[in-house]
Amino acid sequence: MVSTKFLKQLNEKYGIKFHNEKLLEEAFTHSSYANEHPEGVRDYEKLEFLGDAVLELAVSDYLYRHYPNLNEGELTRMRSNIVRTEGFSEFAIECGFQDEINLGKGEEKAGARHRKTLLEDVFEAFNGALYLDQGMKAVTHFLHLTVYPLIDKGEFDASRDYKTDLQELLQKDGPVNIEYVTLSESQLPSHFVVELKINDHVQSQGEGHNKKAAEQQAAKKALDELE
Amino acid sequence: MVSTKFLKQLNEKYGIKFHNEKLLEEAFTHSSYANEHPEGVRDYEKLEFLGDAVLELAVSDYLYRHYPNLNEGELTRMRSNIVRTEGFSEFAIECGFQDEINLGKGEEKAGARHRKTLLEDVFEAFNGALYLDQGMKAVTHFLHLTVYPLIDKGEFDASRDYKTDLQELLQKDGPVNIEYVTLSESQLPSHFVVELKINDHVQSQGEGHNKKAAEQQAAKKALDELE
Repeated sequence: MVSTKFLKQLNEKYGIKFHNEKLLEEAFTHSSYANEHPEGVRDYEKLEFLGDAVLELAVSDYLYRHYPNLNEGELTRMRSNIVRTEGFSEFAIECGFQDEINLGKGEEKAGARHRKTLLEDVFEAFNGALYLDQGMKAVTHFLHLTVYPLIDKGEFDASRDYKTDLQELLQKDGPVNIEYVTLSESQLPSHFVVELKINDHVQSQGEGHNKKAAEQQAAKKALDELE
Repeated sequence: MVSTKFLKQLNEKYGIKFHNEKLLEEAFTHSSYANEHPEGVRDYEKLEFLGDAVLELAVSDYLYRHYPNLNEGELTRMRSNIVRTEGFSEFAIECGFQDEINLGKGEEKAGARHRKTLLEDVFEAFNGALYLDQGMKAVTHFLHLTVYPLIDKGEFDASRDYKTDLQELLQKDGPVNIEYVTLSESQLPSHFVVELKINDHVQSQGEGHNKKAAEQQAAKKALDELE
């Protein structure tokens, strides 16, 4: 059962209160748990099927309206960066979903609770459940508090791959040692700080909600200074 | 400009009247036309980006609610059959979109107006425009008059490939001549009748909104009789 603590947090942090808590329970139930409890327990897979399409439209709609200057190719790339990555797994952790997942014993032992793909599935299923329970408006409200702010911070905007560009710039005259060192990382909220060293000399720092985003920021700063 | 005849038909047949006709115009404008008219003419590509996600959710929602007995794998396969094929192109023809497309001269000569991929893009763009103009409810109303009935007729249910199964059954003891002959085809509405001949002997007939669906139905009937 979903914990009272989690229900309280969901309400206080995101203003969400499910009419049908069974949907929420279903969104957090992995097939391995359902298999061990055959008496009518449903796993999240059908909600994930629906949530996938819910997130696809919610993100497309947001990008279409908020980025009028992007062309179709740029919009598609950005949508794909948001929807097709494991980025959703970090939101699942931030929202406290991780502790609520119902897992079978074997999968629990195998560490499935921390598997990124599973956490991403659960995030999709949660949005599918929210859509069924309260419609698209509730989903976009939730995304305004979670996913959309990171879109606006440019963390999914991989229209340029700064790390690759930096490498090409630096190595055009011969080999250069480029190193990204993680200085700190925290979860809840997810936050990474990395340091970029070029030939053992500290060049820049970057921050982001995951390591990749932090490294891209560090590379971008270095490019701004070096180009 | 979208023709008055088309606007009238859209209203009478589907109950659709655009508040912002510019969106409709945009949905029917190919990039080749926009390139020849650079003075602020927009092509349909961004509406197609949005419409793609609109249709994905509209179809997912319909399948989720109307096919409670399908599991996630079956739902995903069916959604993919509906959304990822060129099936939408036939709806574009049925809805009379074909005559309204704004094409550049070169593309017109090259026969782009009859290209399935282009017609499918236009169908997506139209649904993106309708969503922006009147919301998801108007889109699902439109799909209830076009796409959904064909889902319920089982035309996208390729959980089984009857043609392949028939071939395997018939040819297990040696070569057999299997032939599908188109007896009639019409557009507006799209309708095909095919005849299945096994070693020049008429075995069955099939009907459908495209040739493939009609052939599948003929193969299914033959399997029902032979198995």
